[in-house]
Amino acid sequence: MKVTGAQLKTFTEHVFTTCGMNEADATLAADVLVAADLRGIDSHGVARLSGYVRLWQAKRANMNPHWKIIHQTPSTATVDADEGLGLVVAPKAMQIAIDKAKQVGTGWVAIQNSNHFGIAAYHAMMALEHNMIGIAMTNASPLVAPTFSKERLLGTNPMCYVFPAGKNLPVVVDMATSSAANGKLEIAQRTGKPIPLGWLQDKEGNDTTDPFALSKGGALLPLGSSHDAAGHKGYGLAAVVDIFSAVLSGANYGPWVPPFVAFLDPLSNLPGKGIGHFVGALRVDAFRPYEEFVEHMDNWIKRFKSAATTGDKNQVMIPGEPEFMEYEIRKKEGIKLNEKVLEDLIKLGHEMGIVFPS
Amino acid sequence: MKVTGAQLKTFTEHVFTTCGMNEADATLAADVLVAADLRGIDSHGVARLSGYVRLWQAKRANMNPHWKIIHQTPSTATVDADEGLGLVVAPKAMQIAIDKAKQVGTGWVAIQNSNHFGIAAYHAMMALEHNMIGIAMTNASPLVAPTFSKERLLGTNPMCYVFPAGKNLPVVVDMATSSAANGKLEIAQRTGKPIPLGWLQDKEGNDTTDPFALSKGGALLPLGSSHDAAGHKGYGLAAVVDIFSAVLSGANYGPWVPPFVAFLDPLSNLPGKGIGHFVGALRVDAFRPYEEFVEHMDNWIKRFKSAATTGDKNQVMIPGEPEFMEYEIRKKEGIKLNEKVLEDLIKLGHEMGIVFPS
Repeated sequence: MKVTGAQLKTFTEHVFTTCGMNEADATLAADVLVAADLRGIDSHGVARLSGYVRLWQAKRANMNPHWKIIHQTPSTATVDADEGLGLVVAPKAMQIAIDKAKQVGTGWVAIQNSNHFGIAAYHAMMALEHNMIGIAMTNASPLVAPTFSKERLLGTNPMCYVFPAGKNLPVVVDMATSSAANGKLEIAQRTGKPIPLGWLQDKEGNDTTDPFALSKGGALLPLGSSHDAAGHKGYGLAAVVDIFSAVLSGANYGPWVPPFVAFLDPLSNLPGKGIGHFVGALRVDAFRPYEEFVEHMDNWIKRFKSAATTGDKNQVMIPGEPEFMEYEIRKKEGIKLNEKVLEDLIKLGHEMGIVFPS
Repeated sequence: MKVTGAQLKTFTEHVFTTCGMNEADATLAADVLVAADLRGIDSHGVARLSGYVRLWQAKRANMNPHWKIIHQTPSTATVDADEGLGLVVAPKAMQIAIDKAKQVGTGWVAIQNSNHFGIAAYHAMMALEHNMIGIAMTNASPLVAPTFSKERLLGTNPMCYVFPAGKNLPVVVDMATSSAANGKLEIAQRTGKPIPLGWLQDKEGNDTTDPFALSKGGALLPLGSSHDAAGHKGYGLAAVVDIFSAVLSGANYGPWVPPFVAFLDPLSNLPGKGIGHFVGALRVDAFRPYEEFVEHMDNWIKRFKSAATTGDKNQVMIPGEPEFMEYEIRKKEGIKLNEKVLEDLIKLGHEMGIVFPS
């Protein structure tokens, strides 16, 4: 079953306005969410739409947040998202960062009291049209075990860095700081095939090839996997994201990050508010002339793309290139929805009196 | 053979002043270099001292640089290091970042035309005494192959993030973006034992357990190792460091980064000047009150340290904790120098008319 990005956006907008969100915010939220589907990050697109609605129904997400800046300096701000969706508040926070960068060279915004913000790349890429470098990160509910821990204490905590280029597409590094992508894990679960060592540990902390280990009390491993392969570095990176996003903003951190799914309750005695994000924008010409920078970015990209490869069929890709390729394909050919996701959307539409696909 | 940090510093200072460096800069450079030996990062301390001298003798390093700010905004600056040692210019650039953060909340400095800057943690940790978060990164000569590349196009490009805590030691994430630490590789080379898969590829790009593969045309693998284990993420991180440090500053990037060793010539037609660094400082109270932040950092640290472990002998460490432990030991008991390093220092002392150890 294939649908267009436009169909997904229209449906998503209707769902959000039906939940009481205003038109402008619903359009923005739909744009962020469907950007994931268009870029091939299926796990972060409309597959999560009903999740946001369930959180709202459980009174854990606010569709009309009175978000506000609660602290600021010329280059920084802290935003209280008022339990709004990160899909809505994160782009607004990024706009604040961009405005500050226009004034003083860079802008940095920490966001507390928020909910899941979709793909980090959407927010960071907002910097591009202003000739800026963009950064976005978020913490997430605990699924990852630090090195030598049996407990899940960190989320997949993605970090994203976006650099403009000249003739070429921008460089977009957008990555979970865990070893395995959720998408890859889901594919393995569907086929039931063993997963490579280095993705998961079981509940005792042993390496495992069982794709279902996570639901049996196991944990995702941080980027780098085992201690030998420098898993402590992935743990360090996830910690960096957690501290910037939550300890600095006043959100919940570590094991206290509230679950995205409405059927799991947050822990009690939370140390902060909601989940946290951190975004930044750096004006390129605050460091060197923009034209010079993008010329060298083009040279960088050209050199990396022309590298000798490890096999005839392999290709050295530029970070972000696979997603841009997928975007072109899906823009033209539409988005193939996973069967479970399709069912979920149809069911959600029924509940809300919205036909899908329309 | 054990020496004290003070002995190493005195010797290093003398070596640098003998090369014509002024007293103040020599004291600073020695402090940076020996900080590595004290923190247990043997690969980045006095083991490299003769390397800096050889670069100076080859007229590729300037012991009396007229470094200067060539571009700036209220929150940013670009520094031309005038071929000085990163050991000297990076802490001065970090001071500029700190001064800017005092004024506008954050400060960010890109450095071009530099040389190796020692351990990133030294520079980032300068932020601590100002109640700031510190960041430091640098590119380095190419040893790492991007995913699916046979060629070495990136350095081990470290990134460092430092967060102050209250009652606890600060959190210090200081990591090469490659999978294997050089130190671990050297140990394997000394024993001749096979290394784990995931550290190196051979010259054809195949996985290898040969600890000498690097000198046979192989390459280090990026953090994450293989494509299955998300090596493309380590490649992405190394690219981020390369672009911030060099494309943004005007230094050399990718395969053009000049080698640290004087017996290898830089490539011709370089696209930039020297190697590049990037440092930043964020005032904690530009986001939330400092006391609140460190109280939550203490809570974060306490929770992670109390995690259930994967084995009786294992321990969940806080990023930076192993280095602080090593520092305490080496401060008390002295620094055990590797035999080759000792020989190298004695030989260097002979050449320069300085007795080591004195």
